[in-house]
Amino acid sequence: MTRRKYPHQLTGNNELTCCALALATYRGRMSELMNGRLRMPRTAPENFPLIAAIDLGSNSFHMILAKTDQGEIRVLERLGDKIQLAAGLDEQRQLSEEAMQRGLECLSRYAQLITDLPQGAVRVVGTNALREAVNRDTFIQRAEALLGHTVEVISGREEARLIYLGVSHNMPAFQGNRLVVDIGGGSTEFIIGQSFEPLIMESLQMGCVSYSQRLFQDGKITPARYGQAYTAARLELMRVEQALQRHGWQEAIGASGTVRAIGLAVKSAGLSNGEVTLEGMTWLKRKLFKLGDVDKIDFEGVKNDRRAIFPAGLAILEAIFDAFGLQQMVHSEGALREGVLYDLIGRLQHEDVRERTVSALMERYHVDPEQALRVETKALEALQQVAGDWDLQEEWHQELLVWAARVHEIGLDIAHFQYHKHGAYLIENSELAGFSTQDQQMLALLVRGHRRGIPKDRFSGSGSEGEKLLRLCVLLRFAILFHHIRGNREVPEVRLLAKAQQLSIRFPQGWLENNPLTVADFAQEAEWLAKAGFNLLVS
Amino acid sequence: MTRRKYPHQLTGNNELTCCALALATYRGRMSELMNGRLRMPRTAPENFPLIAAIDLGSNSFHMILAKTDQGEIRVLERLGDKIQLAAGLDEQRQLSEEAMQRGLECLSRYAQLITDLPQGAVRVVGTNALREAVNRDTFIQRAEALLGHTVEVISGREEARLIYLGVSHNMPAFQGNRLVVDIGGGSTEFIIGQSFEPLIMESLQMGCVSYSQRLFQDGKITPARYGQAYTAARLELMRVEQALQRHGWQEAIGASGTVRAIGLAVKSAGLSNGEVTLEGMTWLKRKLFKLGDVDKIDFEGVKNDRRAIFPAGLAILEAIFDAFGLQQMVHSEGALREGVLYDLIGRLQHEDVRERTVSALMERYHVDPEQALRVETKALEALQQVAGDWDLQEEWHQELLVWAARVHEIGLDIAHFQYHKHGAYLIENSELAGFSTQDQQMLALLVRGHRRGIPKDRFSGSGSEGEKLLRLCVLLRFAILFHHIRGNREVPEVRLLAKAQQLSIRFPQGWLENNPLTVADFAQEAEWLAKAGFNLLVS
Repeated sequence: MTRRKYPHQLTGNNELTCCALALATYRGRMSELMNGRLRMPRTAPENFPLIAAIDLGSNSFHMILAKTDQGEIRVLERLGDKIQLAAGLDEQRQLSEEAMQRGLECLSRYAQLITDLPQGAVRVVGTNALREAVNRDTFIQRAEALLGHTVEVISGREEARLIYLGVSHNMPAFQGNRLVVDIGGGSTEFIIGQSFEPLIMESLQMGCVSYSQRLFQDGKITPARYGQAYTAARLELMRVEQALQRHGWQEAIGASGTVRAIGLAVKSAGLSNGEVTLEGMTWLKRKLFKLGDVDKIDFEGVKNDRRAIFPAGLAILEAIFDAFGLQQMVHSEGALREGVLYDLIGRLQHEDVRERTVSALMERYHVDPEQALRVETKALEALQQVAGDWDLQEEWHQELLVWAARVHEIGLDIAHFQYHKHGAYLIENSELAGFSTQDQQMLALLVRGHRRGIPKDRFSGSGSEGEKLLRLCVLLRFAILFHHIRGNREVPEVRLLAKAQQLSIRFPQGWLENNPLTVADFAQEAEWLAKAGFNLLVS
Repeated sequence: MTRRKYPHQLTGNNELTCCALALATYRGRMSELMNGRLRMPRTAPENFPLIAAIDLGSNSFHMILAKTDQGEIRVLERLGDKIQLAAGLDEQRQLSEEAMQRGLECLSRYAQLITDLPQGAVRVVGTNALREAVNRDTFIQRAEALLGHTVEVISGREEARLIYLGVSHNMPAFQGNRLVVDIGGGSTEFIIGQSFEPLIMESLQMGCVSYSQRLFQDGKITPARYGQAYTAARLELMRVEQALQRHGWQEAIGASGTVRAIGLAVKSAGLSNGEVTLEGMTWLKRKLFKLGDVDKIDFEGVKNDRRAIFPAGLAILEAIFDAFGLQQMVHSEGALREGVLYDLIGRLQHEDVRERTVSALMERYHVDPEQALRVETKALEALQQVAGDWDLQEEWHQELLVWAARVHEIGLDIAHFQYHKHGAYLIENSELAGFSTQDQQMLALLVRGHRRGIPKDRFSGSGSEGEKLLRLCVLLRFAILFHHIRGNREVPEVRLLAKAQQLSIRFPQGWLENNPLTVADFAQEAEWLAKAGFNLLVS
């Protein structure tokens, strides 16, 4: 397995320093534009006959294995295991060895079904518990070793996007806005969308496992504790109430096991056909108070392993109903893991949402598209010339370079002074649809290093992958330098030759003599590169 | 003199930690809106009969003293001294004691003319050399002690804005775009504007003093050295060429002593009437090479103290001519210090550019204006109630609170997660017209502290002013919390009572009982405030 490590974090207290970048080999697609221009040998986007998604949730792990057929998905296998990763987080956000073991034991079973699948046919995503855990890297490394596939940690908003993708593919067509709620173990996602398009996505740090830990640890159910859970959820919800209400919706859908279980409990009392209703919840709440202990919970269809998190889940759902004035909520099966599969076949079919994300960034921060295109073209030409010698032949190398070329100037929209840092900040901290946290950090690092001093220590954090990222950065800088004089002045054909720590640039005979500014420019660049351990030769 | 210290820097390697915030007392104006609403006792914007501006440039210090008369300025006195502060910066960007002495000696002379002027009638601005100097605080403290007025360090773009303001007031009316260039000792500013409105402002780190230091230290003038200076300037200029050329211009104006001196030298040879021409520069360059040493420079009208920086100034100006394809450039007297005066009377006349800047920020980052207005109103009501007890009666307290209320949510446009930090980043790093660097940092700190944990150490960096900023932050948080439930639900009248480290909030009898969510919300807030040393009492 080829793993790409994120070399080094850029800022702050985010410990995401060293995880694998997702899915290299199949992320084939470049923009139409590029495809037209370049004849760089690339693996065609494969049409995997079998694909799989694993969702490392805070409460449960899930896997789906599916057949792809003309862009359709036929599920062959669904697996789900209660792991309660979120319950293994201590106050210092350390994930306990026990919790890791529970997860790894589960993954070793899943692995049997997918170890033979090629890279790119499997996508493994971690959510809130792994976002939170400061020692997530330990878990991720062990999980990757077991699975033979890379593990991504995705942001709350990316999670919301994928959930909506799963739900919208799973529900019958509907005119109007849909509110989709997914109460997870550690976070709850809210999406309002129309057809397959999410309009607004939010993620809150409240979940049935984390709330159970805080308020129902010993299993006793009292009105006071329930009230505390309810109030805590209402306070969280205030952050998103108005934004969601501004969009409005005609239908409310719950995508998680919590909503499913509550619906079944309500149904068991003959109060609904499986959907959650206000009346049903009121009945259920009283019933819980009467039972007084999670061990006594016994509703038809509700599994035993959901008992412990049932009261917290109900309190959160009631808070959501009250905050949004809901009357009822139906349950949908399609959720995160289904969304991951649809996203995956979308990528295979050249509908990579990341392309749209990058375009949106360019537009929002007023990037000069012509300059971006010039730099992109030149960077790809350069990559083509040195990819063999610098071991930059994987798809993700090319993708990352192209995206960096397109967005390297976004920081200019904040200020000219140190704009490379502003750009990196925006990329690292924005919620970029389709990008994993690790992707964002790598892209941010390229933007950070595109001019002036190269933060070598951040690149060299993790061995050979950091070295490759640094080489990509050198190529990006070359392309930018080459187009330092903007506009459409004629530029010469140059030849690049790469050795380990060296890049030679050969200009056409006599050209440099007539362009002393370029000479000075590259001389300055040679100094920057020397500080990062690279030797730049210009002739 | 009341001095407001910036409590603590927010991020990175910017050492601007402890300087005075500018111009408290006269910065009177709140938005119309606020004026309509509040009857808070405020000092009316004074109409100072005498105003003064001091420009602590990298090459020279200048002072203008003027009479104001119906919004017009009549200059009574102009002083200018070659200090060459930029020449006193070593490689570690330490400003030498000698250079400081040169500057302070000059200021002690200026002080005689202005010590009697009231606060707010004098504005003192520092530019590139002080932006650069890591030990600027030492100098600023001593300068403030001498002058009895606060010293601001302004950003390159703010400098450009003020230069344009000065030049546009000084030149005859002109249809079309004007390019204004100000070659300073440490930086060069470029502005394209129409009438009094700047369209684009750029600042580059090249100046006649810093280039002289690098290339003409011993006074020898050779074609090779001149070529190096020229090339260095061309490389810098590449950063802004295209952006400026996209706007275009019909007239090029040079606002600095460098352009004036070169124009006079060209005139002395009978090649122009004082404007700089291409032909004149070519002649001048040959002449300099022939002279071979700065000590031999002797053109009519060019002062001896400009000799040492003359060749570097010419090289920079020639690079500008070539980069922009200029044929000639006229000189204008109105520059930074005049701009500072016009800006000052603008503020007095209720045309504070900072109001526009804040509105632009709100619009650009899609702030919900209704929520901002609610928070602003509530924050001002709160300030009115506690201003006496908390010693928050100066104009800048009110201004800062209002601006913070308006922009506290801008970070949401990047991401929901930690948006207070994103907002602070944007405010700290953007070039905000009308704001000094210190203003921006204080505003950023309020936004940074508006939710979740309060970074107490950053507030407490510098004594009593930090304490006041912290109090403003507590008031801002109160107003936000009060409107936590957005929309137009009816909100009760509350009474606030402040003691040293304590804020009591009294709700109407019975109201809290019916609003348990608010109770929970304020209970959570009390915990945050307790960590910052504040006692919050709710009853």
